[in-house]
Amino acid sequence: MRLNSLMAHQTSMHHEKTAEMQRCIDDCLSCHSVCLETVTHCLEMGGRHAEPRHIRLLLDCAEICQTSANFMLRGSDLHSRTCGVCAEVCVRCAEDCEQFRDDPMMMACAETCRRCAGSCQEMAAMR
Amino acid sequence: MRLNSLMAHQTSMHHEKTAEMQRCIDDCLSCHSVCLETVTHCLEMGGRHAEPRHIRLLLDCAEICQTSANFMLRGSDLHSRTCGVCAEVCVRCAEDCEQFRDDPMMMACAETCRRCAGSCQEMAAMR
Amino acid sequence: MRLNSLMAHQTSMHHEKTAEMQRCIDDCLSCHSVCLETVTHCLEMGGRHAEPRHIRLLLDCAEICQTSANFMLRGSDLHSRTCGVCAEVCVRCAEDCEQFRDDPMMMACAETCRRCAGSCQEMAAMR
Amino acid sequence: MRLNSLMAHQTSMHHEKTAEMQRCIDDCLSCHSVCLETVTHCLEMGGRHAEPRHIRLLLDCAEICQTSANFMLRGSDLHSRTCGVCAEVCVRCAEDCEQFRDDPMMMACAETCRRCAGSCQEMAAMR
Repeated sequence: MRLNSLMAHQTSMHHEKTAEMQRCIDDCLSCHSVCLETVTHCLEMGGRHAEPRHIRLLLDCAEICQTSANFMLRGSDLHSRTCGVCAEVCVRCAEDCEQFRDDPMMMACAETCRRCAGSCQEMAAMR
Repeated sequence: MRLNSLMAHQTSMHHEKTAEMQRCIDDCLSCHSVCLETVTHCLEMGGRHAEPRHIRLLLDCAEICQTSANFMLRGSDLHSRTCGVCAEVCVRCAEDCEQFRDDPMMMACAETCRRCAGSCQEMAAMR
Repeated sequence: MRLNSLMAHQTSMHHEKTAEMQRCIDDCLSCHSVCLETVTHCLEMGGRHAEPRHIRLLLDCAEICQTSANFMLRGSDLHSRTCGVCAEVCVRCAEDCEQFRDDPMMMACAETCRRCAGSCQEMAAMR
Repeated sequence: MRLNSLMAHQTSMHHEKTAEMQRCIDDCLSCHSVCLETVTHCLEMGGRHAEPRHIRLLLDCAEICQTSANFMLRGSDLHSRTCGVCAEVCVRCAEDCEQFRDDPMMMACAETCRRCAGSCQEMAAMR
């Protein structure tokens, strides 16, 4: 069902966006979701996982991803600017998550951040 | 690629959420995205599409969907309350979009709102 | 001080909003700001201050306050619904903060949440 | 009036923020609020006021102001980056509003955007 819905979505609504932009929107929304979930995980783990700087970075990353996605969803030509900042925050967040090598949730979060950073860098370079 | 990524996501990160909640999160995020895109579409169409009440409802719907999704992503037990309001706003937004029977984008938006309303009603009833 | 600010604001931009609604917007924006600042404070304090349930409640409260403020700023007639949820989340957040009787920042946060809860209850009752 | 409010605020909660940052937060929150209210005003006016590009710019400005304020409220060191983008979006939004010379609401919005742009440029230059 989910997969059908996804494909229906793609054909019906996003005809006016390039494939690159659509992928960047998807990557931003995924990264936003994963970062928010990771905040809860880190608070539950405690210790170094719950350091203020780390939690704050996850919250920053979640929020700028959401904002960048929204700029693209509105079709704003200023999206290249938000994507530029988003790429930078995502790289920092990925690096911070990668210190927890033994925690698969942190590595999954890092991977999602890296993918989002890549898409956003592409969008930022297009301006 | 998108489909693979989706499935990988499901198995790696969301093990702690019920399938119903995960579907509700997805429905809220889709509804948020579609409503934001529809705002731009409606402004470009002008006329009845661009009436203040209609645009405002789309913006309201986009925002409460995002908020409800975020409550669920954080694992908050208060999500049933935001989902209750979200269901109500989605139904209103769907009804408003359905007045544009000849516009496939509006009908797609209405359908997405209806699906989100259904998922949110389920979550609201569980409290 | 608040009243001066309110009147100055009213004469320039918000002629169409009642004084009650303008106060509720201000209370929601203050509560949003204070809750976000308190998240950082609590993470720095650690221990019971940084319990997942407590941090999550502060994040929930910050977000629903922002959403409720935005509904009112847009002039949406659905604001009574978001204010209803907002009042409930604010009361819970205040109760949670009030367990830290010796911490003036927590007591200030609780007081801001209580004031916002009161304004939102008024708006919710008007529908 | 602003200064009183600022000092009251500072002594209670924001002892750790510089006066410049606190003013930037206030300017971002004001700009966010005014832009959202202006969206409704413009949709009600119709015509050139309701052009997609103009409404989108107001929505972009409202959102990046909120995001920048939130970065500063969390005490994030990445706020200089969001403030840089925010300044740019605010300048564009001000220019767009200034085409409506005869509409006092638009001129008030432009002025708020200009003030926010100034504060954000200061924060962006500090990194």
